[in-house]
Amino acid sequence: MPKDLEAMLSCPVPLSHGDLIQLAHGGGGRLTAQLIEKCFVPTFRNPYLAALGDGAVIPLNGSPEGERLAFTTDTFVVHPIFFPGGDIGSLSIYGTANDLAMCGAEPLCFSSALVLEEGFPLRDLERIVRSMGEACTRLRAPLVTGDTKVVDRGKGDGVFINTSGIGRVRRGVQVGANQALPGDAVLISGPVGDHGIAIMAAREGFEFESELVSDSAPVADLVQALLQAVPQTHVLRDPTRGGLATALAEIASASQVGIRLEEEAIPIREEVRGACELLGFDPLYVACEGRFLAIVPGESASRALAAIRSQPDGRAAQRIGTVSAEDPSRLVLRTAIGSQRLLEKLSGEQLPRIC
Amino acid sequence: MPKDLEAMLSCPVPLSHGDLIQLAHGGGGRLTAQLIEKCFVPTFRNPYLAALGDGAVIPLNGSPEGERLAFTTDTFVVHPIFFPGGDIGSLSIYGTANDLAMCGAEPLCFSSALVLEEGFPLRDLERIVRSMGEACTRLRAPLVTGDTKVVDRGKGDGVFINTSGIGRVRRGVQVGANQALPGDAVLISGPVGDHGIAIMAAREGFEFESELVSDSAPVADLVQALLQAVPQTHVLRDPTRGGLATALAEIASASQVGIRLEEEAIPIREEVRGACELLGFDPLYVACEGRFLAIVPGESASRALAAIRSQPDGRAAQRIGTVSAEDPSRLVLRTAIGSQRLLEKLSGEQLPRIC
Repeated sequence: MPKDLEAMLSCPVPLSHGDLIQLAHGGGGRLTAQLIEKCFVPTFRNPYLAALGDGAVIPLNGSPEGERLAFTTDTFVVHPIFFPGGDIGSLSIYGTANDLAMCGAEPLCFSSALVLEEGFPLRDLERIVRSMGEACTRLRAPLVTGDTKVVDRGKGDGVFINTSGIGRVRRGVQVGANQALPGDAVLISGPVGDHGIAIMAAREGFEFESELVSDSAPVADLVQALLQAVPQTHVLRDPTRGGLATALAEIASASQVGIRLEEEAIPIREEVRGACELLGFDPLYVACEGRFLAIVPGESASRALAAIRSQPDGRAAQRIGTVSAEDPSRLVLRTAIGSQRLLEKLSGEQLPRIC
Repeated sequence: MPKDLEAMLSCPVPLSHGDLIQLAHGGGGRLTAQLIEKCFVPTFRNPYLAALGDGAVIPLNGSPEGERLAFTTDTFVVHPIFFPGGDIGSLSIYGTANDLAMCGAEPLCFSSALVLEEGFPLRDLERIVRSMGEACTRLRAPLVTGDTKVVDRGKGDGVFINTSGIGRVRRGVQVGANQALPGDAVLISGPVGDHGIAIMAAREGFEFESELVSDSAPVADLVQALLQAVPQTHVLRDPTRGGLATALAEIASASQVGIRLEEEAIPIREEVRGACELLGFDPLYVACEGRFLAIVPGESASRALAAIRSQPDGRAAQRIGTVSAEDPSRLVLRTAIGSQRLLEKLSGEQLPRIC
């Protein structure tokens, strides 16, 4: 008997559904957080990983205030690989660059590792690689190293792309999910939910009156404009998997503060709102791939907003909420009709494989 | 009609088998090299990627001779994920650490990005993560950032792991595949082919008289001992996919030199030799995951060999060949009976998914 099979038969069968990986473990919500906190953090006990940021910030010469390196990694399994407004290639570069930006870093260079499924069309690969190249050019940061693996037909799904990145954090910049303070203002750089809904529409072949396009784009220039105007920015976070609500609920919890959102102030496109109603999604939990949240001292809010709005992709930036000492670790939405709603981290999987 | 399908139907069907990704594109041989040279290098035109090393070496403060960063990435799709002598977890850390070592770097930190298949047992994940943790401890370098994605059942294969790494290259170290010079000696740190054959045996359930164990292990300490003894080491390369012959054929071509190997000097375990005969493999093309090739100036060969042999994992190191000005770009094996055999890069796929 092959050893594999022998081993399989001699092992107890997993007892419950909870012993097996579910799609929601990758959804960026509560199950993902549990998996990371229970499985990864205790094993790799170190202050960089424990910070649970979008990447790690590493002092280069021992000084935590001087220039530091940011390091981040993301594997992209988005389906379909081509979608309105982007493709898996540019998404992988922008996504990783945005994670670096969320550490307060400018991108220095990228790596790329592809897992291709046997039978994948070379023409599609060339198109994806071209798109990655254009994304690198736009970010003025080179792709310097890579890897290519091929798995048997039926053991992959066309192409998965891991993109890791190194960035440089300038002296004085200190952002972190645990840095929000009462009195801070919460800003968003543009309308939310476009990416998730565009992917869902492309996947299911829905037709909407006006075509929905992903917001996939780099936020590096917007973040640099913000950090130049308000170097004491406290938190940067991109609302990808789990959307705006999950990102802010995590910040409220990490900073032990309350966050109050004004529903009417949150920019959401009409098409996205309509599609969400149709599909039964809450747009506050739908992923963006070209937006970011910034939490800045209240007195700097107008300066911060003006800096973001000075950039072409930041014109629709809004102040959407306030950090308070009340209700620590809670995210509360004041709705248009004046009632209050507690927003928790995404539980379960709303939209699988959107990045 | 879903847009995906529409797009698919409106595109011309690929004309020949050559238009589709084959397993051999990931085999580390000729097709992999073609894919990289045709598809990636022209798009990401930069000196770091064009060097085609095991990673990129990036000057930190503009000086190409001072301290530099090494950056590397690898996705591991090995099957089976548990095998005699290791598992996908430790393999992913050691493999990436070894790629850093091949840049002449000591590891600073790692990232890890997992693609899990829906239904994967959490127990196996915990075992793999523990193994990664132990590997990081052994290398004295932390895992500082990560990512977890889940794909639908049937769209992955249990678990794929990307591990990227950053290392530090000390002042004065200058290694590269194009640095071999006539008169140099070729060294190997231990017997070749153990990993590939151990994986194959585990996969197929073969039983050999004495159990074959993978050589998966970090080579960092061996390389540091070598670089301390012979800082002017010219080339470091780990013979993973494509094995010893492909690695040396690539070096011969990159350095425009001839390399002559002495068949009798190449250490190969009896069990590996036997299994290769049985399975029809050439051990010179079978992957190692804990060995490295070093090309050093001829006059430093004994010092280099002594330094590698001073380390527990390097006791079986051997001098196996010489670099010459004759037959540039060619790798020639002098066989035990005195005849000569030209060794080319691996063509096709000998052992799929061994790392």
